[in-house]
Amino acid sequence: MSDERIRDPRLLDRVMSADAAAGFIQPGTTVAMSGFTGSGYPKAVPQALAHRIEQAQAQGDRFQISLLTGASTAPELDGALAKVDGLALRLPFQSDPDARKRINDGTLEYIDVHLSHVAQHAWFGFYGEIDTAVIEVSAIREDGSLVPSTSVGNNKTWLDLAKKVIIEVNDWQPAGVDGMHDIYYGTALPPHRRPVPLVKPDDRIGETALRCDPAKIVAVVRTHGPDRNSPFNPADETSQRIAMHLVEFLKHEVKAGRLPPNLLPLQSGVGNIPNAVLAGLAASGFRNLTAFTEVIQDGMLDLLREGIISSASCTGFALSPEANERFKRDIDFYRQRIIMRTQEISNHPELIRRLGCIGMNGMVEADLYGNVNSTHIMGTRIQNGIGGSGDFARNGYLSTFLSPSTAKGGSISSIVPMVSHVDHTEHDVSIIVTEQGVADLRGLSPKQRARQVIDHCAHPDFRDALEDYFQRASRDSYGKHTPHLLPEALSWHQRWLDTGSMLK
Amino acid sequence: MSDERIRDPRLLDRVMSADAAAGFIQPGTTVAMSGFTGSGYPKAVPQALAHRIEQAQAQGDRFQISLLTGASTAPELDGALAKVDGLALRLPFQSDPDARKRINDGTLEYIDVHLSHVAQHAWFGFYGEIDTAVIEVSAIREDGSLVPSTSVGNNKTWLDLAKKVIIEVNDWQPAGVDGMHDIYYGTALPPHRRPVPLVKPDDRIGETALRCDPAKIVAVVRTHGPDRNSPFNPADETSQRIAMHLVEFLKHEVKAGRLPPNLLPLQSGVGNIPNAVLAGLAASGFRNLTAFTEVIQDGMLDLLREGIISSASCTGFALSPEANERFKRDIDFYRQRIIMRTQEISNHPELIRRLGCIGMNGMVEADLYGNVNSTHIMGTRIQNGIGGSGDFARNGYLSTFLSPSTAKGGSISSIVPMVSHVDHTEHDVSIIVTEQGVADLRGLSPKQRARQVIDHCAHPDFRDALEDYFQRASRDSYGKHTPHLLPEALSWHQRWLDTGSMLK
Repeated sequence: MSDERIRDPRLLDRVMSADAAAGFIQPGTTVAMSGFTGSGYPKAVPQALAHRIEQAQAQGDRFQISLLTGASTAPELDGALAKVDGLALRLPFQSDPDARKRINDGTLEYIDVHLSHVAQHAWFGFYGEIDTAVIEVSAIREDGSLVPSTSVGNNKTWLDLAKKVIIEVNDWQPAGVDGMHDIYYGTALPPHRRPVPLVKPDDRIGETALRCDPAKIVAVVRTHGPDRNSPFNPADETSQRIAMHLVEFLKHEVKAGRLPPNLLPLQSGVGNIPNAVLAGLAASGFRNLTAFTEVIQDGMLDLLREGIISSASCTGFALSPEANERFKRDIDFYRQRIIMRTQEISNHPELIRRLGCIGMNGMVEADLYGNVNSTHIMGTRIQNGIGGSGDFARNGYLSTFLSPSTAKGGSISSIVPMVSHVDHTEHDVSIIVTEQGVADLRGLSPKQRARQVIDHCAHPDFRDALEDYFQRASRDSYGKHTPHLLPEALSWHQRWLDTGSMLK
Repeated sequence: MSDERIRDPRLLDRVMSADAAAGFIQPGTTVAMSGFTGSGYPKAVPQALAHRIEQAQAQGDRFQISLLTGASTAPELDGALAKVDGLALRLPFQSDPDARKRINDGTLEYIDVHLSHVAQHAWFGFYGEIDTAVIEVSAIREDGSLVPSTSVGNNKTWLDLAKKVIIEVNDWQPAGVDGMHDIYYGTALPPHRRPVPLVKPDDRIGETALRCDPAKIVAVVRTHGPDRNSPFNPADETSQRIAMHLVEFLKHEVKAGRLPPNLLPLQSGVGNIPNAVLAGLAASGFRNLTAFTEVIQDGMLDLLREGIISSASCTGFALSPEANERFKRDIDFYRQRIIMRTQEISNHPELIRRLGCIGMNGMVEADLYGNVNSTHIMGTRIQNGIGGSGDFARNGYLSTFLSPSTAKGGSISSIVPMVSHVDHTEHDVSIIVTEQGVADLRGLSPKQRARQVIDHCAHPDFRDALEDYFQRASRDSYGKHTPHLLPEALSWHQRWLDTGSMLK
C-alpha cells in the first residue's frame, strides 16, 4: 500500500499491525467503532481484539468491552467479538447472528436506540466515557483530516469524544469517495443549538472530511478488505406485490394532489421490498425522485445511474458485490449525486420533518389499531433493532410499514390482535402494506383502523380469526375506544410458542 | 359591549346571536374550533349548536359533526355537544367526562394525535375538508386581524383552511392580552419548508395577531364568559414526594455538569405534580429558569411573578379563578414574559430538540422495561389523550414521567409487568419518578431498566410480585432480551377487572 492513503507524515510513525493497535484497548472500557449496515466498519482491529480477548479469557481473565457503532457491522466485528464473549454491552443497532444469540440468551446487554439519538446521548454523557474510537477511513489527508470510507455513521462524534483513536486506512475502499461526504460541524449541546441549515436533500452544509486531533491518534492500521457486500436476491412475488400496492397508493396520492409528481424525499429501509418499491416507481414513470435516507442499496444505485433518482443523501451503503463494483467503477458519477452524512443529520427529526420524507420500513408485525412492532419476535426475542424507522415514522410526511402478511411458512400472521412489543405507536403509523393490500390509517379512529387492517392487510388464513376477535372485543371490552380482550390479546403469540402456529 | 373589541367596521354588520351563527353549521361537516386545556374556546356558539342538534334529533333528523380543536375544551363545548350525541368524530385531545363516556362506549370515534401533528395533518388533507371554524378572540383590530384570547392552539390553521369562519369576541378576556401572542406564518408544506428561526424560548418570530380573510367571516358573536378556570388543589404529600425526587435528580444532574445551573427550558404537563415540581425548584434555589411548554398553570405564573422563571412560551393557560384574577390584574407584567404560540410551534420537534427541553409529564402506567402508557386505563378505556407528551418525550433533552406508584386506593400498581397500551416506547423514556424514587433509565438495557424500575419506583405492596415476574421471565422467557411470560404479561390488568385489585 502506497502512502497515497496516509498523506499526513506526522502519522506515519504510528502505523502498526492490528494486533499492536488492539493492545490499546483495555478490558472494561467503552469502545466506539465505525460501521453502518455492513459498510465502513474496521476490518482488522476488531478481529485482533477478539483474538486478544480469547487469549485473556483462556487464562481466566475476564475481558469484555462495551461497543458503540453507527449501526450493524459484519461478522469480522460484531460476530468476532460476540463469539469470544467479548461484549458486555452493545448499542445502538446490530444484526449479527452470534451477537443476537447472546442478546436473546440474556448474556449480552443490548440497548436499542433511535439512530437520531445516539450521538446526542453520547454527548449528553448517557453512555459514560468513550475510551477508544476505532474508525475506518479511506485516506488521511495532508492536514491530518480523515476521509471517511463507505459509511459515516457516528464517526464524527466518536472521534470528538474518544480519549484515544485507532484509524484503519482501508485501500480497498475507492479513493474517489473523497468529496462524497458532508460532515456537519454545526451541532452543539443545548442551549447553544442553532437551526440545521439544510432545506433540500442535496444541500451541502459541512466539510468533506472528519477532523481529528492527531495527538489522540495512537495507531494507524493499513487494511485491504471488502465491506460485507451481501448478494442481491431478486424480489420474490410477495415483495413485488407489496411494492406494487405501495406504488399504486403513491400514484393515487399524486393524483389527489397530496404529493408532488416527483414525490417527496424517499427513505427506505434495507431489504428486498424497498428495492422492489424503487423498481416499481421507476417502471411507473416516476422521475426526478430524491432520497434522504440512511442506506443506499442496489436499487437506489441503479435508479441514480438511470437518472430516475436525481440525488440521494445517506450515511452508509448496503450493496451487493456486483453493485459495489459498479459503484467503484462509476464513482465520479456517483460522487456528484450522492452525499454521505453523519447519522445525526441523516436521521435528524428537524430535517426529516422539514423535508417531509416518505418513510418506507419493514416490520415484524402490526396490530388491529396500527401499533407496529419492528424488533421483537413474540415480544421477547430481538431481531435487529429499531434503527432509524422511528425517526422517519414520527417525523416524515408519510410513515409506511411494509411486510408480507405471514411469516414462517404461513404459521405466523403479521397482523395480530395486539402487537407483542411496540416500537411505533398508533400515533405514528399512517400506512401499512402487505401483499394483500394497503391499509390507509390516516385520520381514522382505532376502530376504523381495525376495519382497514383486517380488510386490506390480513392474510385470508387469519382474517376470520381477526374479525372474530375484533367483534368480540368491540362487544365485551372494558373500554371500547381500543377494544381488547386482555386474556386473548397476546394468545396468538403464545399459541405459536406452544404449537408452532398462530392458527388454532 | 363597546366596539373597542370589534374595531374593523366591515365586520359590524355580521354581528349576530350565537343561535343565528350556529345556523351556518351543517350536519355531517367538519368543524374546527379554538380551545386548548380549557382556555380560549368559544363559549356560546357550541351551546347554540348543541341546542340546534337536540331540536333536529328530536324531530328524527340525524345531526352530527366532526370536531377538531387545539386540545381539551370545557363542558360548554365538548360536554354540550357530547351530551346531545352531536359528535361523530373528535380529535386531537379531549378531557370531558361526557365525551369520554361516549368514546369508551364505542359511540364516538376519537383520534388521539400528537399535538405537533395536528396542523400539518390538516394541511396534508388527512382530515378532509374543514367547513367551518369557530374561533374565540379577544378583539378584532381595525385591519381585520384577530387578537387571540387565552389560547392559540391550531387557530391559525383553522382560519386558513376553513371555508367559513365564525368569530366569538369575548370581552371577558383581558384586552391587555394583545401583544402577548406570536403567530408564526413561516410554515409551509414540504418541499417548501424552511428552518423555524427560533433559538431561545423567548424569541419572537411571528405576528401578534391572526390573519383572516374578512370575506370568509360569516358571523361575529359577542360573548362575555370565563374560561374553564378550575380550582387549584394544593399538592398532596405524594405529589410533593414525587416533586422532591425529581428536583433532587435535577440538582444532581447540574452537579454532574450534564445540565446548566438554570437547567434547560421546562415543559410541564397539567396537574398538581408539575405545580409541585415548580415549587420545589423555586425552594431549592433554582433561578433564571425558562419554560417552553404547552400550558401555563398557577405554579408557573407564580414563578414568573417571583422572577424565578424569567420567560415562558406556551400555547394556552390552565389557571384557577384566583390565578386568573392575578393574571388579568398584572397582565402588563406578564405580557413582557409570556409568549403564546401556535401549537405547531409550541410542540415542534425541531424546536424541542434544538432547545433541549426537559419534559415532565404524567402517565397511567410504566412497565419493567420503560414503556409508558399515558392514555388507556386497562388498555382499552381512554382517559384523555397523549397530548404533547410524545413531542417532548421523543425530542427533549430529558423525558421524565411522573406518577404516584399506585392508583385507586392502592388497588392498581402504576408499575406493571407489561403496559396495556404503549404511548411512549422504551426508546423514548429516560426517567420515571414515583413517590418511591427515581428510575434513571438512560444508557441501560431492558433488564437493567427493570432493576431500576422495581427497586426505585414500584410500591412496596407490588414490589415482590414484580420481582417474581421478572425473575421467572428472565428464566423462562422465549427471548431474554425483553423477558416476558405472555400469558401473565397483562394478567395484572385482567385481575383488576375481575377482582377490583391487581394484588393477588
